[in-house]
Amino acid sequence: MNLVDIISGIKNCNNIAILPHIQADGDAWGSCIALGIALKRLGKDIKIISEETIPKIYGFLPLEDIVIYQGTNNHSFDMVIALDTGDIGRIGNRIEVFNSTDNTVNIDHHGTNTGFARYNYIDVNAAATGEIIYELINLLNVEIDTDIATCLYVAIATDTGCFKFNNTTSKTHEIVSDMVKNGVKIAEVAQKVFDSTTKERVMLMGYAINTLELFEEGRLAFICITNEMLRAANAGDEDCDGIVNIGRNIEGVESSVVIREKSQGEYKINLRSKSYIDVGQVAFKFGGGGHKMAAGCTIKGDLDSVKKSVYEELKRLL
Amino acid sequence: MNLVDIISGIKNCNNIAILPHIQADGDAWGSCIALGIALKRLGKDIKIISEETIPKIYGFLPLEDIVIYQGTNNHSFDMVIALDTGDIGRIGNRIEVFNSTDNTVNIDHHGTNTGFARYNYIDVNAAATGEIIYELINLLNVEIDTDIATCLYVAIATDTGCFKFNNTTSKTHEIVSDMVKNGVKIAEVAQKVFDSTTKERVMLMGYAINTLELFEEGRLAFICITNEMLRAANAGDEDCDGIVNIGRNIEGVESSVVIREKSQGEYKINLRSKSYIDVGQVAFKFGGGGHKMAAGCTIKGDLDSVKKSVYEELKRLL
Repeated sequence: MNLVDIISGIKNCNNIAILPHIQADGDAWGSCIALGIALKRLGKDIKIISEETIPKIYGFLPLEDIVIYQGTNNHSFDMVIALDTGDIGRIGNRIEVFNSTDNTVNIDHHGTNTGFARYNYIDVNAAATGEIIYELINLLNVEIDTDIATCLYVAIATDTGCFKFNNTTSKTHEIVSDMVKNGVKIAEVAQKVFDSTTKERVMLMGYAINTLELFEEGRLAFICITNEMLRAANAGDEDCDGIVNIGRNIEGVESSVVIREKSQGEYKINLRSKSYIDVGQVAFKFGGGGHKMAAGCTIKGDLDSVKKSVYEELKRLL
Repeated sequence: MNLVDIISGIKNCNNIAILPHIQADGDAWGSCIALGIALKRLGKDIKIISEETIPKIYGFLPLEDIVIYQGTNNHSFDMVIALDTGDIGRIGNRIEVFNSTDNTVNIDHHGTNTGFARYNYIDVNAAATGEIIYELINLLNVEIDTDIATCLYVAIATDTGCFKFNNTTSKTHEIVSDMVKNGVKIAEVAQKVFDSTTKERVMLMGYAINTLELFEEGRLAFICITNEMLRAANAGDEDCDGIVNIGRNIEGVESSVVIREKSQGEYKINLRSKSYIDVGQVAFKFGGGGHKMAAGCTIKGDLDSVKKSVYEELKRLL
């Protein structure tokens, strides 16, 4: 299925639902809202149905009146489009909405996409689903106004780590160049999406850094986060995200570990590597999983013994 | 003077010195090395003469054999080109090199440039001097290979804060798109330039965060850095850079302050604002200076009274 055929399909439909994946990220939200606005401009009746409410960080996106949440859905649709969704499991509780019509579309850039819809368009060379939606909107001949451009900018900028990940291509920058022409307020949007934090998060980061230890001539970095720290910072689980990168970004560190207390005697281990250690393999040894550069597992024991176990495994691979 | 005239001048010269400004940053180094390589390809004898040795963070740039340092200069030149240098003061100790010929060129993007050379080309719409050098190299008909592209990428990416500052234009992204086509290893270079830190820096950040205080319903953020902290982290002055942004990036904070102990009874104040407070005005009150969003000053007194003085000034402007 190519994009032109998908467009023919869209043109024959009036009531269209657009679904981001569960726990939707910047690419999913940006792509869904951009496409939603574009189709609304063509006179379609559009509902974006998400599993969860939109995260605060993306709350500034131009939601118009097209976004609704899973619990509030009692519409019927003649087309359902899933965006940025690798498999049917990531439709979550909205599976009834998805199955309410035969006319299902799946537009994505994940290489692992299972082609779960009737019509599937997967472009693994796209850095973000937002890049595909950019093409689609151009093919629909809808003008990319500032609202649509802002959504596509967020989609592409977040999935490329602000153009720093190796999925970033020359085409990525070409598209973003066009988005800037169309009025995206780069500095304002980037501040909201990339540089906005909370007091709780910063406080927790401080406590976490206080526990930083380097071993093996600075090649292994360990940070511990206790429940006591979370309480003192008034922080939540989600505030732990990214702390593992503090260790990883230190010059000379090959592998970074965050050990986080879950309950008495149970610790969640977050692992990163910079170049050659396969931390997925380490996590697997402890019953967890992941990729070469990023993995995780849960280990039972006291903090010292948990730390020692992970340390010994990593040391062997140095 | 336009770029075509500058090129005519360059073509008539063989021994050319290229000078970045003192305390050269990514834009200055990237621009100088890119231009140096391009002119070397045209058969010119090129020396980049810098005030200081290249910072470790930019040490991966393709220096070839064209970079020398101020102390080792005993050459004579028939053209000197200053890049990214706003005024003659930023030539520093290399003033003799600069004055050794009448044939001086000044290429820059700073609005405050004083036009201190015989031939001046200032483009204030360029996000970085690297953007001007990109044009210049194209006009010279030198192929932009991976080495040149990497230098220009570093120049432009650093001066735009990785494409997040409001100087970023659609042209910026167009040029970077071309750099990616020419083989820049985005992820590798971005990791080195933006995401690389040291244990000392991280430790200092931890100590600094431990002092974080928010006032006036979270609109003012204060962080203090003492010499004791610098010693404990084994950190230097340069490791304090960026700490003021930790406070600034907290949701709800309008103005962020870092108070840094210099000597007994003397404190350096670093000020940032997010939208409406003019911190330049605050710094000016204390004999310092800067811009609306970023400023600094030095205040004498004990820590508590210094903090109180800055706090009272900012509070008035909230």
